[in-house]
Amino acid sequence: MEPSKELIEEKIREGRAFVARWEIDENLFEGYLTDQDKKLPQPPLVKEAMTDNVMDLPRDFSALAINNDFLGIINSRESHRVYTGETMSLLELSYLLWCTQGIKEIRGRAYATLRTVPCGGARHEFECYMAVRDVDGLEPGLYHYLPMHHQIEYLDAPDSLDEFISASLCGQAWTAKANVVFYYSAVFYRAEWRYGITTHRVLLIDSGHITENMYLAATSIGLGGCAIGAVDGNLCDSSFRLDGEEEAMFYAMPVGKVKAEDKSKEKEFYAFVDEQNL
Amino acid sequence: MEPSKELIEEKIREGRAFVARWEIDENLFEGYLTDQDKKLPQPPLVKEAMTDNVMDLPRDFSALAINNDFLGIINSRESHRVYTGETMSLLELSYLLWCTQGIKEIRGRAYATLRTVPCGGARHEFECYMAVRDVDGLEPGLYHYLPMHHQIEYLDAPDSLDEFISASLCGQAWTAKANVVFYYSAVFYRAEWRYGITTHRVLLIDSGHITENMYLAATSIGLGGCAIGAVDGNLCDSSFRLDGEEEAMFYAMPVGKVKAEDKSKEKEFYAFVDEQNL
Repeated sequence: MEPSKELIEEKIREGRAFVARWEIDENLFEGYLTDQDKKLPQPPLVKEAMTDNVMDLPRDFSALAINNDFLGIINSRESHRVYTGETMSLLELSYLLWCTQGIKEIRGRAYATLRTVPCGGARHEFECYMAVRDVDGLEPGLYHYLPMHHQIEYLDAPDSLDEFISASLCGQAWTAKANVVFYYSAVFYRAEWRYGITTHRVLLIDSGHITENMYLAATSIGLGGCAIGAVDGNLCDSSFRLDGEEEAMFYAMPVGKVKAEDKSKEKEFYAFVDEQNL
Repeated sequence: MEPSKELIEEKIREGRAFVARWEIDENLFEGYLTDQDKKLPQPPLVKEAMTDNVMDLPRDFSALAINNDFLGIINSRESHRVYTGETMSLLELSYLLWCTQGIKEIRGRAYATLRTVPCGGARHEFECYMAVRDVDGLEPGLYHYLPMHHQIEYLDAPDSLDEFISASLCGQAWTAKANVVFYYSAVFYRAEWRYGITTHRVLLIDSGHITENMYLAATSIGLGGCAIGAVDGNLCDSSFRLDGEEEAMFYAMPVGKVKAEDKSKEKEFYAFVDEQNL
């Protein structure tokens, strides 16, 4: 039995209102103040390491063959779901992390981080985790990026990493052939402290800034990926040790080595378009 | 009087759930099918011109001095709220539109547009509008981008363009000194046809891809901007002739000519950080 038309319409209305009718209801929220307005102490700018298994990442990217044709990168960026199986270098991984969440500067004593991506009020309420399958010099397993000193920490190894990856992305098996899957969580209060009840729509927009830099940075060094909204939040939260309330996983992007010759395989993901003559 | 703590907590919970607990409730929505699942006809890929005032944009960007240091662009991108007041060229505007919404290819007969930004399912459910203040060769006023043939159409001139811009962005007066303000609407059903009730959180993420390309493309040619979530939806919808239900404005980005010497003026927007010793 299908759900009722009224129920579906109600959900569609809610979704649309969340996107475009975000303003505070002045009748309900007259006099509303955020915690920043109230001068409450602000939360930490980044999440601390959860383990002692911390390692520095290389920061000198001069050894990378970066494509420096900016418009060429914009024009050639595509979604990639087919990977060659070649190993990714640690420097490549470091470059991707730098281009998407790297901290360039601290504003004030400890007011905000200024990063390689823009974020509303420079709150940068995201944490980046990884399932590393095939990166030179790294044990396969789950990792956490520590942007303050451009480091990563090793968290854990699931019994089967490939099964974890596929399940964590709601069964999309192609994802378990990427070199790395980047997972993004929201540490909600880091933004709510400043923006309160209007935080969440802008949070989603800001997360798109991160993955767009990931697409472009990957393209610039011959890698490719495809961002994924269908994340199994419960599985990710428990696997990466998030409580699911104050911090929750919501977005991911597998990235791997790609080659032009695989373009025809990529098209198989859209075979239905030709089959149905769309 | 402040709103009750319970009311605020309820709103926070709703917002967090929208971000991270987006899955369909299987009890409520068992058997749910999207309109694509039901093989209903898909909506148009782009919105048609609303007027006859259509003009082609230049597509040859070889005359632009594009910075081709990709990592340098990533590292030097900043938010810019201070503009020099110099005129923007039509080629610069055309380049920004191309890099953010340009159509590279059509998938299938008319199944999807492939653009210079990624978007879930290649739905590209956005339309781009502009308040043009100071672009060489363009009458100041309101415009609409027509991506299918890389054109723009002139819609209207508000009585006071500067007052409109400032009011449309909830009173942020600095925005009315940009050369152009880009406004983004969502044409909801273009994505809902495929994704149904799970459309809206991914829609917001996808809109961030657009503005990140805008930040980087602007940086690459010596322009700057700052994306804004605080859009007066009612004012924008009526001014750009949107119905506010099937299509609604929700996001904007002023862009203008910038120079390094204005960096100290930019800091005035954060004067409170030093004043409060944050």
